[in-house]
Amino acid sequence: MVKPTLNLAVHRLATGVTEEDTLVVEEPLELRVGGRSLVVTMRTPGHDRELAAGFLYAEGLIDGPDDLAALEKVSDPADPKDNTVDVLLASGIRADEERFASARRALYASSACGVCGKATLEQVLQIAAPLQAPRRFDPAWLAELPAQLRQAQATFAATGGLHAAALFDAQGRLEVLREDIGRHNAVDKVLGWRLLQDRAPVDDAVLVISGRLGFEIVQKALVARVPAIVSVGAPSSLAIRLAREAGQQVVAFVRPGGGNVYSPEPT
Amino acid sequence: MVKPTLNLAVHRLATGVTEEDTLVVEEPLELRVGGRSLVVTMRTPGHDRELAAGFLYAEGLIDGPDDLAALEKVSDPADPKDNTVDVLLASGIRADEERFASARRALYASSACGVCGKATLEQVLQIAAPLQAPRRFDPAWLAELPAQLRQAQATFAATGGLHAAALFDAQGRLEVLREDIGRHNAVDKVLGWRLLQDRAPVDDAVLVISGRLGFEIVQKALVARVPAIVSVGAPSSLAIRLAREAGQQVVAFVRPGGGNVYSPEPT
Repeated sequence: MVKPTLNLAVHRLATGVTEEDTLVVEEPLELRVGGRSLVVTMRTPGHDRELAAGFLYAEGLIDGPDDLAALEKVSDPADPKDNTVDVLLASGIRADEERFASARRALYASSACGVCGKATLEQVLQIAAPLQAPRRFDPAWLAELPAQLRQAQATFAATGGLHAAALFDAQGRLEVLREDIGRHNAVDKVLGWRLLQDRAPVDDAVLVISGRLGFEIVQKALVARVPAIVSVGAPSSLAIRLAREAGQQVVAFVRPGGGNVYSPEPT
Repeated sequence: MVKPTLNLAVHRLATGVTEEDTLVVEEPLELRVGGRSLVVTMRTPGHDRELAAGFLYAEGLIDGPDDLAALEKVSDPADPKDNTVDVLLASGIRADEERFASARRALYASSACGVCGKATLEQVLQIAAPLQAPRRFDPAWLAELPAQLRQAQATFAATGGLHAAALFDAQGRLEVLREDIGRHNAVDKVLGWRLLQDRAPVDDAVLVISGRLGFEIVQKALVARVPAIVSVGAPSSLAIRLAREAGQQVVAFVRPGGGNVYSPEPT
């Protein structure tokens, strides 16, 4: 197994000293479905099965663990770093490259009008309907979760290079935390962790992320039916428009003692 | 033209006040080649022609402005947000979806060994050879450039949500600065700006970025022949391994009065 960090010699300009520095490891992961390459993502090694399961789930290609007949790291002497996961889908489930490509296209592009934010939202909401009577949380309570996330982040302090995603239950207990150089990967890993536990949809938990909140993370959370998202960083316009349309709570730009409620729209 | 920021009403938990907050705009951009969709990227509107040109250039699909017969925003009443760019390639140049897909695959996956970091580096270096006798800069001087970048960032202060990329010449003068919600997009925009000025390769400038330094940004810079990269954030393992192999200078994790020289490898 490849470690998530690597030490390399660097020259520190402030002190003039050459010494070891801890870097976050970035390696490609190839996701194969039935032996055929579906996608390659640059990720931090670790929890690769969760990453694969979460990716397939959050992109709408599988609905639950029953759709997975097998999900294995590929052991190949020619791939000593174990950078390949092979998924075998249950019979009747199809997630080949063509379906994947068309799913991505459907999410982003409407053949009727080219690409525009409105079409993008409408397409996402066709694939993942707005939440119905979602669980609601006290916004001030939500704003306290990032402090817990930070305390639980082991690797970040060492490298400064990792994004974190975590799920907290309604009692504020940390369910799972994953770190990755890619923010989308960290989200896929926590959603995949739930899926592999046969605990999808994720309609009872809060997704907390260490970075900024873009459209694609809101979309992944919506597909998984997550009712509330908290981010330390700033959200984008389209992320908030989607969250408001979909009925998700969003508290973002969280600082000690504060944070902004972006969704639902304040009255 | 769509503005790069948008004001939305939010509820501030610290003060209990509901007021306007400035968000960075995120919209999809569809890049078409000869009318056919090549890729959709989530980006901040503005400088879309540069983004398209830089993407094609940094991904190795075109070599210079002469490969572009036309590069236009698509005006379509059904796409009021102008989220489409259509590229017409010069005769003899082919960058259709198949070539694009195979270029991406070539970058990441070796058919011989699945996917591994070593194969990834080798594949990149086959497409973009290591730099020969690149221009060299004083590392302490490089470490001073992020402060200039920050001063020049107009939008960041308002939204906290944008990545910046800039090119500085050998005299430390800012050539161009672009901001985007996607860090790769910001890099594509500054490289595309050079290409559209018929000033590629970019072998005389320093690329400075506001965020973290991952593998794909080093790869884009290498294809454009950029000799030195400076990042405020931490670099990844694979980013540094590629930069060292390719002969690029990297100063990263820059703080006031300091920073680390990651490449070339300290002796």
